[in-house]
Amino acid sequence: MLKKVAIIMGSDSDYPRLKGAFKILKEFGIEVESHVMSAHRTPEAAATFAKNAKENGIGVIIAAAGKAAHLAGVIAAHTTLPVIGIPVDASLGGLDALLATVQMPNGIPVATVSINSGENAALLAVQMMGIDNESISDKLLLYKEKMVSEVERKDSALQDIIASQE
Amino acid sequence: MLKKVAIIMGSDSDYPRLKGAFKILKEFGIEVESHVMSAHRTPEAAATFAKNAKENGIGVIIAAAGKAAHLAGVIAAHTTLPVIGIPVDASLGGLDALLATVQMPNGIPVATVSINSGENAALLAVQMMGIDNESISDKLLLYKEKMVSEVERKDSALQDIIASQE
Amino acid sequence: MLKKVAIIMGSDSDYPRLKGAFKILKEFGIEVESHVMSAHRTPEAAATFAKNAKENGIGVIIAAAGKAAHLAGVIAAHTTLPVIGIPVDASLGGLDALLATVQMPNGIPVATVSINSGENAALLAVQMMGIDNESISDKLLLYKEKMVSEVERKDSALQDIIASQE
Amino acid sequence: MLKKVAIIMGSDSDYPRLKGAFKILKEFGIEVESHVMSAHRTPEAAATFAKNAKENGIGVIIAAAGKAAHLAGVIAAHTTLPVIGIPVDASLGGLDALLATVQMPNGIPVATVSINSGENAALLAVQMMGIDNESISDKLLLYKEKMVSEVERKDSALQDIIASQE
Amino acid sequence: MLKKVAIIMGSDSDYPRLKGAFKILKEFGIEVESHVMSAHRTPEAAATFAKNAKENGIGVIIAAAGKAAHLAGVIAAHTTLPVIGIPVDASLGGLDALLATVQMPNGIPVATVSINSGENAALLAVQMMGIDNESISDKLLLYKEKMVSEVERKDSALQDIIASQE
Amino acid sequence: MLKKVAIIMGSDSDYPRLKGAFKILKEFGIEVESHVMSAHRTPEAAATFAKNAKENGIGVIIAAAGKAAHLAGVIAAHTTLPVIGIPVDASLGGLDALLATVQMPNGIPVATVSINSGENAALLAVQMMGIDNESISDKLLLYKEKMVSEVERKDSALQDIIASQE
Amino acid sequence: MLKKVAIIMGSDSDYPRLKGAFKILKEFGIEVESHVMSAHRTPEAAATFAKNAKENGIGVIIAAAGKAAHLAGVIAAHTTLPVIGIPVDASLGGLDALLATVQMPNGIPVATVSINSGENAALLAVQMMGIDNESISDKLLLYKEKMVSEVERKDSALQDIIASQE
Amino acid sequence: MLKKVAIIMGSDSDYPRLKGAFKILKEFGIEVESHVMSAHRTPEAAATFAKNAKENGIGVIIAAAGKAAHLAGVIAAHTTLPVIGIPVDASLGGLDALLATVQMPNGIPVATVSINSGENAALLAVQMMGIDNESISDKLLLYKEKMVSEVERKDSALQDIIASQE
Repeated sequence: MLKKVAIIMGSDSDYPRLKGAFKILKEFGIEVESHVMSAHRTPEAAATFAKNAKENGIGVIIAAAGKAAHLAGVIAAHTTLPVIGIPVDASLGGLDALLATVQMPNGIPVATVSINSGENAALLAVQMMGIDNESISDKLLLYKEKMVSEVERKDSALQDIIASQE
Repeated sequence: MLKKVAIIMGSDSDYPRLKGAFKILKEFGIEVESHVMSAHRTPEAAATFAKNAKENGIGVIIAAAGKAAHLAGVIAAHTTLPVIGIPVDASLGGLDALLATVQMPNGIPVATVSINSGENAALLAVQMMGIDNESISDKLLLYKEKMVSEVERKDSALQDIIASQE
Repeated sequence: MLKKVAIIMGSDSDYPRLKGAFKILKEFGIEVESHVMSAHRTPEAAATFAKNAKENGIGVIIAAAGKAAHLAGVIAAHTTLPVIGIPVDASLGGLDALLATVQMPNGIPVATVSINSGENAALLAVQMMGIDNESISDKLLLYKEKMVSEVERKDSALQDIIASQE
Repeated sequence: MLKKVAIIMGSDSDYPRLKGAFKILKEFGIEVESHVMSAHRTPEAAATFAKNAKENGIGVIIAAAGKAAHLAGVIAAHTTLPVIGIPVDASLGGLDALLATVQMPNGIPVATVSINSGENAALLAVQMMGIDNESISDKLLLYKEKMVSEVERKDSALQDIIASQE
Repeated sequence: MLKKVAIIMGSDSDYPRLKGAFKILKEFGIEVESHVMSAHRTPEAAATFAKNAKENGIGVIIAAAGKAAHLAGVIAAHTTLPVIGIPVDASLGGLDALLATVQMPNGIPVATVSINSGENAALLAVQMMGIDNESISDKLLLYKEKMVSEVERKDSALQDIIASQE
Repeated sequence: MLKKVAIIMGSDSDYPRLKGAFKILKEFGIEVESHVMSAHRTPEAAATFAKNAKENGIGVIIAAAGKAAHLAGVIAAHTTLPVIGIPVDASLGGLDALLATVQMPNGIPVATVSINSGENAALLAVQMMGIDNESISDKLLLYKEKMVSEVERKDSALQDIIASQE
Repeated sequence: MLKKVAIIMGSDSDYPRLKGAFKILKEFGIEVESHVMSAHRTPEAAATFAKNAKENGIGVIIAAAGKAAHLAGVIAAHTTLPVIGIPVDASLGGLDALLATVQMPNGIPVATVSINSGENAALLAVQMMGIDNESISDKLLLYKEKMVSEVERKDSALQDIIASQE
Repeated sequence: MLKKVAIIMGSDSDYPRLKGAFKILKEFGIEVESHVMSAHRTPEAAATFAKNAKENGIGVIIAAAGKAAHLAGVIAAHTTLPVIGIPVDASLGGLDALLATVQMPNGIPVATVSINSGENAALLAVQMMGIDNESISDKLLLYKEKMVSEVERKDSALQDIIASQE
């Protein structure tokens, strides 16, 4: 049976920013479980969640956090599942969150994606789950093709813009 | 059957730096295929490799590159497999490689690990392959326990050092 | 016959930002060919374009991209034409795009101009095409003179402002 | 009775770097308890230590860590004692550790000192313990006076150097 | 008797930004004394204040400053009390103020908190004053529990949002 | 007749660092004229050189400078020829030189290559001169092919290393 | 007779930003001469101005520029007068302009003040002219005293705000 | 009578690094007074020195400091003389010291020179003292000419190197 993906965030107010991740996972037919948790304010809840994630049917955990972004790392400390970190731009353009998420010591990796990019976190989770799942990996091919069409459509639009300027 | 992990690097001289990755994958009984390739000098080879990786039995691709590190991103453009990027410190302390690896546009994620950390890239690949594989995920638990013992051993050593100073 | 200059961008929505480049090339009577392409979403299209650019009558390629800006580098990998990269400020003030564009490994240069500066990319392309073309290089002299007049006009305006304050 | 200060580090190999902290606390007659612990490799041990620190007679906790330095923050999450963070230069000149230590979210402060400065961490701990303790605060005054003498001694040395050059 | 906490700022216009600090200290029943002072414009006043702070019943000093933020360091130079520095984002995203506050030379620590975080400065001051004060430290436990409830409340809100989207 | 390429540097001691540029230009049969000049110490000489470069048979100017690297920009101000800037790592890892070289205002572009990369500066100059010169552009194709072989040779070497480890 | 201070800027649109500098110099009774000039667009004018500045009765030159800010350095190359550089925030928060202004090579200093701070540039010019001029230096003392009063006034305002909150 | 220049440093061990400054001031016949002082360890001494500098015959003060470099700013707070700051590279490549020195708030400028550049600090001091002193300003012209000869000598050396390679 297909594993779930968990999306962990620091506040319900982060939901709009992460909507793209929810949308992509839905598109791929992957069930999502989502929680508000904090590495610092609710460390017990975060640890408990991470320790039980695997037996609760979760396959990949996504964690979004800003500033001294410890959330992904703290979750990774308590699980053997792959953990994806989204650095959130809450100060310094997100450079602090990026470094605090990606620069993990040897032994506890966090798969870091670009600043604020819920979409890439979700797609990466899908790719991980598609390693041994042909149906998912077929859908990823279609997704890639859709991106090609989208770029081609924009190229047409550009030709129209340029033609109209002449 | 267990998928292979590919390790792509820009030069054979990078091998010593990536030895930790090879060692960990061997420890977990995962077959490795490794190539010297360049996003810029051999873009065709990189694209061809990436396009065929899945049908060649590869499950995860690790790519290490420095400076304007495009290798992981270029490979990710040509595959639906998860791609792990290792930013290599070749200038500016590796900040250029980190940003060029992690800041991927929406649609093409690269799972970025800490600067120079072949070990974390390998462990992340193992975690990905363990999502649906209990044997791998059991070994990851043991690996985590070994790390705990290692830290405990160091704590004992510290107590000895401190005692000897008094 | 005068070669064309190609302007490659990631989305048609980048057009307004690059308008200055189109304007300058038109001013110098240089034909422009422009496309929306992505190093990551349409890598094949980008490679094909780059490989055929020379025989399609293109002399210089300008590529604008943000974040982990690989576009210029990926195009440069597939051509012997000079490639000019415009780092676009899409995050971190454009520092990520600047480093990802300029820090190319030995063998594949990208001629990088200042963040967001379509104007400088176009002028640099014109300068390249003027190396062996006296007519272009004469126009560049006039352009430089026009800039001098413009600064002198601003100096007059400043004297008026100051006088009016006294 | 005087509380103890705890010094937590990631490896016994960090001990030489932190020797200055041990020395200063000894000088002030403050008992030190020290452990090797990791926010990521031994998160349980770190949490348990932090939760029991207060009832184990500890008044201030110092934690030193590099890269994505979560140690101080993770400890702070589990205690109401003040936690002092020492960012260790393990990559990027220590900028990553500094940001990961200091940029804590509202609610869980970490008192951050300068990169690699065990001395300042120890002195800050002493200052905290001296808020309501005249004996400690008197010793701090003496320490400050000793620093003045030290600078005056160096000033004399400088005058000698300069005189000898003439 | 409970010591006071001093909050020093560069201008009365900083007050709104620091309101959170005042609020927290009031919540913990700690008396606040606050001044507008400048390390550079009123160095005498700052020095005099710092030298007399202890005998004026102050236990901890908080100083907020931006740009080349010397205020906390200058105050720390004149007292044995712990000094907490709040780097204020007045330019460069606050990176200048952060480095100018935290990178103090050996001998004169400044306990630095995250950029603009008056709340964390206040909580850190409370933690310092709670080292030997059970009543304060009990209130800190309650404060931590309140934060847990707050996160749990946000988690419920998130579940509602997600349910409403389906 | 083929134009010359000029290589301008701040000191004869920079020569070893720029040897790669000389070597590549020789390989492509392009005559080099080289000078030690300084934007700040010999501004007249730099201006005079730049103004006369075109009529002295120069087609492209390469300028290498560190710190507040103004050399390329100052030369570009006095010529209509394309100017290539090499940021030299003399402090801050070369970040200062990179920004001072690349961030030119609209109207005066400098074609900036990666930090310390004389090789890329020379290749870019060759590419510029190859826009209308088939013989140069054919040699560039051969150069690209040589790079491919070089990478393939390194790939073989890697396979040998790995085989020897088993 | 009192020397003049020159204020050089890149565009008349910079005037509002530099108004503080004009105001301060007027306050101190120092005559100002101001020009729009560009290191890159009008290098001749800048050089000629700098070479003749001394004999035209100028004592100190202030130059404001953004991005790859060469203006102050280029002027300094052509004069023995002290040159003050104001880095202007035109991109990257002004970090590029700061580094391009301050990191001058040995032999050609630029006295750099904080980003965008016309006021400090003017005050520094006044201080330089006050080295041997008691009247100016007396006015500087008054200016310092005025700053003290200003801070004291703000401190009173703060006490009112706080009182009103209770 | 010619004013003295003061050179203030944090430790006698800084002397070798500042030797260039002493040498240049001697060359120009300017008397130097030098002290080891610390903004943080000996704030009283620094303040007293600064307050009396003018009446002690000092015309310009140079201060060198690293990390959270407050020395120049603290001295500037207590004098109306121009203060020159040398940021010393003691960590983070000197970026912390640069920002802490240059980013002074309005009202208290510090004339900042490039990282570690004692030479430029000294030359700037000489330029300031030459505003109204023809003899100094004549020597500065000679110094500039000497730099020109030095560059010309290096250019000859370069021509020899290149000739010898052919």
